Amino acid sequence: MDRRPEKPRKGDRTRGRNPHRTSSPARAAGRASRARFARPEGRSEHALLYGWHTVAAALANPARRFRKLLITENALRRLQDEAVTLPIAPEVVRPDAIAARLGPDAVHQGLLAETDPLPSVELDDLGPASLVLILDQITDPHNVGAILRSAAAFAVDAVVTTARHSPEATGVLAKSASGALEHVPLVLVQNLARAMTALRDRSFLLVGLDSDGVEDLPEVRIAAPCALVLGAEGKGLRQLTRATCDVVARLDMPGAIKSLNVSNAAAVALYVARARLTRERG
Amino acid sequence: MDRRPEKPRKGDRTRGRNPHRTSSPARAAGRASRARFARPEGRSEHALLYGWHTVAAALANPARRFRKLLITENALRRLQDEAVTLPIAPEVVRPDAIAARLGPDAVHQGLLAETDPLPSVELDDLGPASLVLILDQITDPHNVGAILRSAAAFAVDAVVTTARHSPEATGVLAKSASGALEHVPLVLVQNLARAMTALRDRSFLLVGLDSDGVEDLPEVRIAAPCALVLGAEGKGLRQLTRATCDVVARLDMPGAIKSLNVSNAAAVALYVARARLTRERG
Repeated sequence: MDRRPEKPRKGDRTRGRNPHRTSSPARAAGRASRARFARPEGRSEHALLYGWHTVAAALANPARRFRKLLITENALRRLQDEAVTLPIAPEVVRPDAIAARLGPDAVHQGLLAETDPLPSVELDDLGPASLVLILDQITDPHNVGAILRSAAAFAVDAVVTTARHSPEATGVLAKSASGALEHVPLVLVQNLARAMTALRDRSFLLVGLDSDGVEDLPEVRIAAPCALVLGAEGKGLRQLTRATCDVVARLDMPGAIKSLNVSNAAAVALYVARARLTRERG
Repeated sequence: MDRRPEKPRKGDRTRGRNPHRTSSPARAAGRASRARFARPEGRSEHALLYGWHTVAAALANPARRFRKLLITENALRRLQDEAVTLPIAPEVVRPDAIAARLGPDAVHQGLLAETDPLPSVELDDLGPASLVLILDQITDPHNVGAILRSAAAFAVDAVVTTARHSPEATGVLAKSASGALEHVPLVLVQNLARAMTALRDRSFLLVGLDSDGVEDLPEVRIAAPCALVLGAEGKGLRQLTRATCDVVARLDMPGAIKSLNVSNAAAVALYVARARLTRERG
């Protein structure tokens, strides 16, 4: 169910060929570093953000670089009422001009921004962290977006995910994240097991979640710093990911259905982990 | 983002006019009772079910009446491998014949069934119950489907929702519910506040969830029988719904974003409530 507005073709490497971009040295340098961190092969160079929470949070984020802001009169008035400063001159348009770019299903609420993707954070640059979330090839952008929103709500310090086989931080994902992209550092890595090992070297407890885990998650002795590792629905954790975990836990369900939607499982797991960490600290 | 394959028009009352239906007295009686319970005005008389879990669970449910079953060779082999009995002769088709009915976004996994909607349960017919979920005009079918799946996972005894302003139990909702429609009784009511009062008369504690609730949910003294009441994202609980609750609780979030996606909030609330009820009982 991939409905990203702009799906990059595999191996698409159009950066630098955009005729609308100037190429000052500063920009080129910025581009090079962004390319290294945020845009592994095949990643697009735009992020499309729409919807009230998503765009309002981006407007409040000084690190977000805007290229274009389409806005309806109503939405503009609402932003002015809330005294939001605009980092770019908006183009006031009719709602259907936005709908024409996004398709009829997108709830845009009168706001569409075209921005640079946020730079990805390097694992080494993470400050002190108590709770990290690792996503092992979860591909559905709705689910990943909802997971990022929950990560921001449960004060997760970073979300680590593979650069390949993960949806981009744009479109449907950004909408479902409801502003979380501006709050949770996203760490894109080439090799998930290697990143997990690096976290273990920094004393992280690596807790995988899988339906056939050995312990019920609420029974696991969770202590900070901790990394929760989630796999895709159906597939679960890949073998090497699983083998790299310190413990693989399950979420016991008392009912007729034994598994939750992956974003719901993430929310429950984050609730359990955060409650435990708060208790330990208190 | 309503992508139901068959959207009923308002006030559509075509039942009984379908030329493919026989009209034996038994069938007419069945239809009348179904119409009363399951198909308030404007509800369609078909449920479209697709996807492995959704259709496999329906095939295992003796109460589900099949009209048509489209299936690919691969899916048929898989059902035979799992010794599933088919209540109707399947039509073996190519995958694109199913995709043509559902659109390119639907992950159908080679299975599409056309069935009668399951009869709605009357509140009075509910047996002994410890945990009930009440949905106050949550309209997004993905979210309602995921909530039903979590309800089945957390052994919720029934989901109560308004007959109007709720998505139908078909298509995207059924797919997201991943078989939960066959497990959780769905109670469709005309008036939610009246249904809540009826539950209170049966000793239910009515716990509303809202961002400005007075107590943090984990602090609320939850005892069986309990009904959790959830409103739509953004809108929250309607005023009368809220006023009818015994207590309105919030879910405190430690992070930068203060609210979860509604299906994620439902999963966390169900986890908290079920854990509490289990502890009380143990």
